[in-house]
Amino acid sequence: MGIPRFLRHFCVFPKLTTTIQHQPRGIPERLSPSCGSNMHFHNWLNGLYQCLSKPSGRTTQLTCGSLSRSLVLSSHRRNPEFSSFVARTNTCGELRSSHLGQEVTLCGWIQYRRQNIFLVLRDFHGLVQVVIPQDESAVKKILCEAPVESVVQVSGTVISRPPGQENPKMPTGEIEIKVKSAKLLNSCKKLPFEIKDFVKKTEALRLKYRFLDLRSFQMQYNLRLRSQMVMKMREYLCNLHGFVDIETPTLFKRTPGGAKEFVIPSREPGKFYSLPQSPQQFKQLLMVGGLDRYFQVARCYRDEGSRPDRQPEFTQIDIEMSFVDQTGIRSLIEGLLQYSWPSDKDPVVVPFPSMTFAEALATYGTDKPDIRFGMKIVDISDVFRNTEVKFLQDALSKPEGSIKAICIPDGTKYLKKKDIESITKFATDYSDQEVLPVFLKANRNWNSPVVKFIKDEQKLELIRLMEIQEEDMVLLTAGEHKKACALLGKLRLECADLLEARGVLLRDPTLLSFLWVVDFPLFLPKEENPGELESAHHPFTAPHTSDIHLLYTEPEKVRSQHYDLVLNGNEIGGGSIRIHDAKLQHYILATLLKEDVKLLSHLLQALDCGAPPHGGIALGLDRLICLVTGAPSIRDVIAFPKSFRGHDLMSNAPDSVPPEELKPYHIQVLWPKDTEA
Amino acid sequence: MGIPRFLRHFCVFPKLTTTIQHQPRGIPERLSPSCGSNMHFHNWLNGLYQCLSKPSGRTTQLTCGSLSRSLVLSSHRRNPEFSSFVARTNTCGELRSSHLGQEVTLCGWIQYRRQNIFLVLRDFHGLVQVVIPQDESAVKKILCEAPVESVVQVSGTVISRPPGQENPKMPTGEIEIKVKSAKLLNSCKKLPFEIKDFVKKTEALRLKYRFLDLRSFQMQYNLRLRSQMVMKMREYLCNLHGFVDIETPTLFKRTPGGAKEFVIPSREPGKFYSLPQSPQQFKQLLMVGGLDRYFQVARCYRDEGSRPDRQPEFTQIDIEMSFVDQTGIRSLIEGLLQYSWPSDKDPVVVPFPSMTFAEALATYGTDKPDIRFGMKIVDISDVFRNTEVKFLQDALSKPEGSIKAICIPDGTKYLKKKDIESITKFATDYSDQEVLPVFLKANRNWNSPVVKFIKDEQKLELIRLMEIQEEDMVLLTAGEHKKACALLGKLRLECADLLEARGVLLRDPTLLSFLWVVDFPLFLPKEENPGELESAHHPFTAPHTSDIHLLYTEPEKVRSQHYDLVLNGNEIGGGSIRIHDAKLQHYILATLLKEDVKLLSHLLQALDCGAPPHGGIALGLDRLICLVTGAPSIRDVIAFPKSFRGHDLMSNAPDSVPPEELKPYHIQVLWPKDTEA
Repeated sequence: MGIPRFLRHFCVFPKLTTTIQHQPRGIPERLSPSCGSNMHFHNWLNGLYQCLSKPSGRTTQLTCGSLSRSLVLSSHRRNPEFSSFVARTNTCGELRSSHLGQEVTLCGWIQYRRQNIFLVLRDFHGLVQVVIPQDESAVKKILCEAPVESVVQVSGTVISRPPGQENPKMPTGEIEIKVKSAKLLNSCKKLPFEIKDFVKKTEALRLKYRFLDLRSFQMQYNLRLRSQMVMKMREYLCNLHGFVDIETPTLFKRTPGGAKEFVIPSREPGKFYSLPQSPQQFKQLLMVGGLDRYFQVARCYRDEGSRPDRQPEFTQIDIEMSFVDQTGIRSLIEGLLQYSWPSDKDPVVVPFPSMTFAEALATYGTDKPDIRFGMKIVDISDVFRNTEVKFLQDALSKPEGSIKAICIPDGTKYLKKKDIESITKFATDYSDQEVLPVFLKANRNWNSPVVKFIKDEQKLELIRLMEIQEEDMVLLTAGEHKKACALLGKLRLECADLLEARGVLLRDPTLLSFLWVVDFPLFLPKEENPGELESAHHPFTAPHTSDIHLLYTEPEKVRSQHYDLVLNGNEIGGGSIRIHDAKLQHYILATLLKEDVKLLSHLLQALDCGAPPHGGIALGLDRLICLVTGAPSIRDVIAFPKSFRGHDLMSNAPDSVPPEELKPYHIQVLWPKDTEA
Repeated sequence: MGIPRFLRHFCVFPKLTTTIQHQPRGIPERLSPSCGSNMHFHNWLNGLYQCLSKPSGRTTQLTCGSLSRSLVLSSHRRNPEFSSFVARTNTCGELRSSHLGQEVTLCGWIQYRRQNIFLVLRDFHGLVQVVIPQDESAVKKILCEAPVESVVQVSGTVISRPPGQENPKMPTGEIEIKVKSAKLLNSCKKLPFEIKDFVKKTEALRLKYRFLDLRSFQMQYNLRLRSQMVMKMREYLCNLHGFVDIETPTLFKRTPGGAKEFVIPSREPGKFYSLPQSPQQFKQLLMVGGLDRYFQVARCYRDEGSRPDRQPEFTQIDIEMSFVDQTGIRSLIEGLLQYSWPSDKDPVVVPFPSMTFAEALATYGTDKPDIRFGMKIVDISDVFRNTEVKFLQDALSKPEGSIKAICIPDGTKYLKKKDIESITKFATDYSDQEVLPVFLKANRNWNSPVVKFIKDEQKLELIRLMEIQEEDMVLLTAGEHKKACALLGKLRLECADLLEARGVLLRDPTLLSFLWVVDFPLFLPKEENPGELESAHHPFTAPHTSDIHLLYTEPEKVRSQHYDLVLNGNEIGGGSIRIHDAKLQHYILATLLKEDVKLLSHLLQALDCGAPPHGGIALGLDRLICLVTGAPSIRDVIAFPKSFRGHDLMSNAPDSVPPEELKPYHIQVLWPKDTEA
């Protein structure tokens, strides 16, 4: 739901990231694959493999010597052989003094050349300096004439750099390569733009030339870390806990209410497959089939048009278990994240705290609270029970009416007049004037249009209730409980942005604040028709056992066995215990949700054939990796992402298809009227 | 290409499979999830986890005692915890005498009940006997009244069976469970057919009720083995050799000549995504992007209508490397298969032999020879240079004309008249009478319509050339080289079927005959227009280095750097070294293949930006697992396969979609004329 706030804020505070070693945060150099200042290239790679190699919570025994020897890529603690089967003996980044005298063959891209004497060669592993032999004219010609970003193979000896010429900033800075032979593997004919300019290019240009953008440190780091984390998740699930990795179809049929599903015409007239939004039905059917511990790194599809930071296809770590309850799923996931988390980050502390949906809404105004900082919402209705302020009176007199407030620490110090105007405008835009924010300054001179109507004892009570300090600022609003909370939840994050833009540290991006949010409502009133109900999540979610009786009397009050996993204010996963009783499932589908039961007859039938109790969860992998790497967008952790508008800017997908290729599928394009004229 | 012959033959010889321990081959019991004779259920599971646990080529040190202790699921050699996080303490199949006295909680399905005294409980791990307490009326009621296939939870003590009542055939046969409490987790209300009848049900019924079919031993075994093998492949690629697992998009644009690609309408009028047949372009672009060791367990899509043993979506182990040659890829794959192969099978012996395409065609009449048995094609043209037989004379006088033969050992003994008629008919049907088979009996009385025209010295020469023994039968044909070979290649397999149907062992299914086939032609004449060329595989395949000059003079003679991996006559993989030179790629696309280069402009541009030399391969996972498990069809190694006609018989996909749901995609159904009338 909504914009990933954490990511936006993250960019505001690059300085906060310097506590993380070996990993370039922010994006200053990501777009310059060939600029000369990339000596810390080694560092991040070194850091990447080191941090990923350590089983969580333990120390790695790194052998000194060559980098490749110290790369331990999984709990196997066996060194991956990066140069097996190929035409190099070593990677560019791994050579050290311990290799002195060794004959090596390297393959890489020409990073830059200095006065036709030195050449710096790059691969994914790092940079190495190559001495261009001045007396071997053929070799010299190759190495001096090949344009930057050309691919060459060089063979030679690892030698010491002359005294005084070592480069301590460069992991390979003590050595260089005395070349005996060289081969131009491919000349870089033309780059689509000057490399220097590339830094300033838009994301659109990066996406169009993704094959070049992938050469950047950040993309290499992100994609390699993603691969490693997923591998460790697989080890945890498959090897440690006996889960079975099962692939489920992506050519499926539309699900009830599946308005966001892509359709795929088949060769039968009028018959379409759909690309499922998740393997939900399949994983439940696997439980019925006795495959009682399922997982899949599942590709899912959602046609959401141009919602920011969404992709039409995305990946989730999809999990389902039989004979499990909420506690079991939570422990499993806590262990999974702890096991797979890169060890250069703060270790994942388990168990994660949990909070009910009602509490999250009342305290943070959202179902995905960022609990790294305070500024909690406080209900101050009681302070104003006897208020004379008209709009507060009005609010309290209505059903669910309330007065709420948040306290912004040092708000009067950091927030300027235009900030307050922007907050007011945001509140007005957001809440359509149904709720009205009020500003109070909590210093000696309370400062607000309504302050004169607030009695002294009310002020004292507010200071007590909200622990208001000098220079704090209070945002107050009145209205229906949920709306008032939701608005203050938004304002809380808005204000955090503003404070951080002023240099106040509120949300430490190195902190991992995991949180379970539980006890969601099972149903919500339909937006278009509030008299009817729709599933808050999906119709297979089991009701809270203690609320089952309410299903037949006040279904809108039933809480569900759904749970969300939140990390620093981002929803990174969600799941539930499912309904395994066919009669209950039928009642909810047919009677409460008024869905066409026929579309799900196979599932209802399956539940009647000895379906075990079961539950599961799905983690959004793209978002999770985004948070782990500190990438500003999920597009930075996906090799070939689509643009905001769902386009592949590199290949130009989607594209026109000639009518004759549509014929076998019995469809034709229905051109919009306005383009026909 | 064509029908997976191995699989057909496999079913003919269940007796050959008895050498494989712990794994039920054939299908006699696969369709009876609840029949009472499934005591070897334990065995296969035991075997499965044991065989998968051993690193190839080494012996596993299994600890005695409980099965769960001896389950070592990967090279980690750490026991997976099958009962972590869930409401059981143990699986049904793991209990032994060593557990005597333990308090256990089990969850499972009621397999059967004997006289309301015993109940056999089943989970994926095996069966266990539960004693129904006669004096606890509540517990007794639950356990006696729950229908078969209901799900129950029982808690109790592991006790010895009374002397004489042990069941040595049952791994848990020494113990039983003295139940203290029981809970009916879900009653099996109705099964869609009588379990007894299920055995005889068609595959269509199995697919319709897949959630029940998955409970069968065979499906559990196949899917669990698949998961384990893929996990070991990942360990090999990712942990041992530094490959990066990268997900590539499945919403792409159509590729030139991509007539078999599903189209997906987008929300832009007339613009469509395509589901790619493989990540070919993406993996090459990753190489350009410096991600020099890529792999992915990739979902691919091909709309082939109703070709047997194909699925509209399938999975391949997709691999690409930079700076590699054919030898490197071959070694990588040989190591991969050796590492991941289940250790209860014969170990994979490397390196695999290799054979040129020309040799495979000349000797076996196919590009995927089954080299487990002889009956090779012999060119006997020279024997008949001076023949008086008219049709042989005619054949030899034509370009590429030849006379070929295969020798069927003991053919006269095993092949009956009707077999010969059926072979003749097959040959006539297959070759459209362009080539004519001739039957000779190689015993004292040569027996064939044309035998009188064959001179004695010709007979002697044939016997010498083809090493004909008494009672052998020779199949002879004359015609253009390729056609003659292709026909005899088919007849060779036909005859092998016939001989094996008579009980002759020709193709040992436990034998693993891997074979590399290399040096394919780069181009083939187009079927519809033989004057033009098309790629034999795909347009990115690099030409053989020694044939490059022919590209500009006689392109049809150019051999490619493509290679296929064949196992027992099945193509299980294929790949190539790719073109990394933009000019060469452009020449082949535009000049030789006359493709629209614009559709691939991004790839051509990428090649010009410093593309490293690279190559790769894709293994067909479904087919591979099929061969490893001995399953008769790839539908038996896929959890939710489509039918022959591409239908999901369980959910009824593809399905109708209301016109209003098509509107956002700007398409409408074009109903065929004949249904409009």
